[in-house]
Amino acid sequence: MTKRYPTAEVLAQANDTFLDSVSVDCVILAFHQGSLKVLLNKFKISDKWMLPGGFVHIDENVDDAANRILKFRVGIADLYLKQFHLFGNCDRTRKEESLKMLDSWGITPENGHWFLKRFVSMGYYALVEYSKASISIDESVEEVGWYDLDKLPELYADHGAIVEKAINTIRIQIGIVPIGYELLPEKFTMPELRLIYEAILGYELDRRNFQRKMLSVGLINRLDEKRKNGAHKAPYLYSFNREKYEEASLGGVHLMPWTH
Amino acid sequence: MTKRYPTAEVLAQANDTFLDSVSVDCVILAFHQGSLKVLLNKFKISDKWMLPGGFVHIDENVDDAANRILKFRVGIADLYLKQFHLFGNCDRTRKEESLKMLDSWGITPENGHWFLKRFVSMGYYALVEYSKASISIDESVEEVGWYDLDKLPELYADHGAIVEKAINTIRIQIGIVPIGYELLPEKFTMPELRLIYEAILGYELDRRNFQRKMLSVGLINRLDEKRKNGAHKAPYLYSFNREKYEEASLGGVHLMPWTH
Repeated sequence: MTKRYPTAEVLAQANDTFLDSVSVDCVILAFHQGSLKVLLNKFKISDKWMLPGGFVHIDENVDDAANRILKFRVGIADLYLKQFHLFGNCDRTRKEESLKMLDSWGITPENGHWFLKRFVSMGYYALVEYSKASISIDESVEEVGWYDLDKLPELYADHGAIVEKAINTIRIQIGIVPIGYELLPEKFTMPELRLIYEAILGYELDRRNFQRKMLSVGLINRLDEKRKNGAHKAPYLYSFNREKYEEASLGGVHLMPWTH
Repeated sequence: MTKRYPTAEVLAQANDTFLDSVSVDCVILAFHQGSLKVLLNKFKISDKWMLPGGFVHIDENVDDAANRILKFRVGIADLYLKQFHLFGNCDRTRKEESLKMLDSWGITPENGHWFLKRFVSMGYYALVEYSKASISIDESVEEVGWYDLDKLPELYADHGAIVEKAINTIRIQIGIVPIGYELLPEKFTMPELRLIYEAILGYELDRRNFQRKMLSVGLINRLDEKRKNGAHKAPYLYSFNREKYEEASLGGVHLMPWTH
């Protein structure tokens, strides 16, 4: 299940190594220095960035393929990872783009090569605590990096639309997706939590209202401790009430009740 | 896009007619006589009921395939239809079961017949107003019927788990899925609305609390009209405020705020 091939080798595989027609793409989100970031990778030979993704082994569950790709890219297993949408339109893969990619890997495809057929892609999003992620480079043939959600470079095929749909899904489900809980370290400031919600919602929230209402939900504790950061007035630190959060994840608590 | 084949003909098709490895299954829900119902169909030759579903044409978007199947089964286009989960485990299709099915259709499959390969299935749920659905029978080789959610017959393969996951998804998203709005006719009684919520949540709700809080959301109007039903005390009729509901569907209103 965990066997991996370098890309050129993958593309030279026979049809029966991978599940036909199905790929997996992951929108991996983290929060760092005040902004929401997306992990992207790029083949050095290509001019376009891609979402971490790949194919599904013939004896591998689709969810396990997503977990394998995620674990390989950020070095952590068992992360918060959710299916959010199957990208199943006919026009999402373009044969010319795929041919160009095969060519750049030195592969001359036979007629009916599996990589040139139509693919649908299962979109997953993952919420990662930035400091815990350890980004690995794929045999030095790829570049990998975190990009600001609002300053993404040009993306391959429909990957831009995949990112957009992921954010939109989290926005609609903001009352049940524990974005702050999964993205923040154990101790955090109230502005950090607010910036995450603002990045997902796409608009600014009132500072004082946010703080008051977020505390009223009862999932956050104010600590007797402040962030020491020289220049600014030291802000209080907060932590999540992990036990209550796990209860909340079973339903029954709306994580941001006042937007609804 | 709308071409359909009888089942035996579908199974005799070459690989290049359908997208490999991907099928679609639909959990079609309706509300009738106080209970939530699921639409099931069955091949006469088989002893197990199945969810309405099918394959994806090679030139058809996956969402369009789900819409085509739904339209064929209930006679309505443009229904409330949502992806909810990709069933992508290796063990979900069993070769023996598929062989038996081919055999019953009089098909002796060649080695590597596309139907015998591993399939993943995109699960969709649809919310249908019962009285508007017109169930069609497939060239008299199938049986079709509405079954009570809590009294389902034995289902084919993992279709029981697919129904369960659909209900569980709607339960978790109860604040954003307009179940009452989509399942009820224009005029309805408060107990009818409550029964729908109870069927999804799996527990009873307090009558008076439900009525008071549901009205407080502001999406429902009490009409100056009562349901005439002889035996019982005539209950008031209600209707949805359609304009407000459409606003709500864009976010910003929690449809059942007090469960969270």
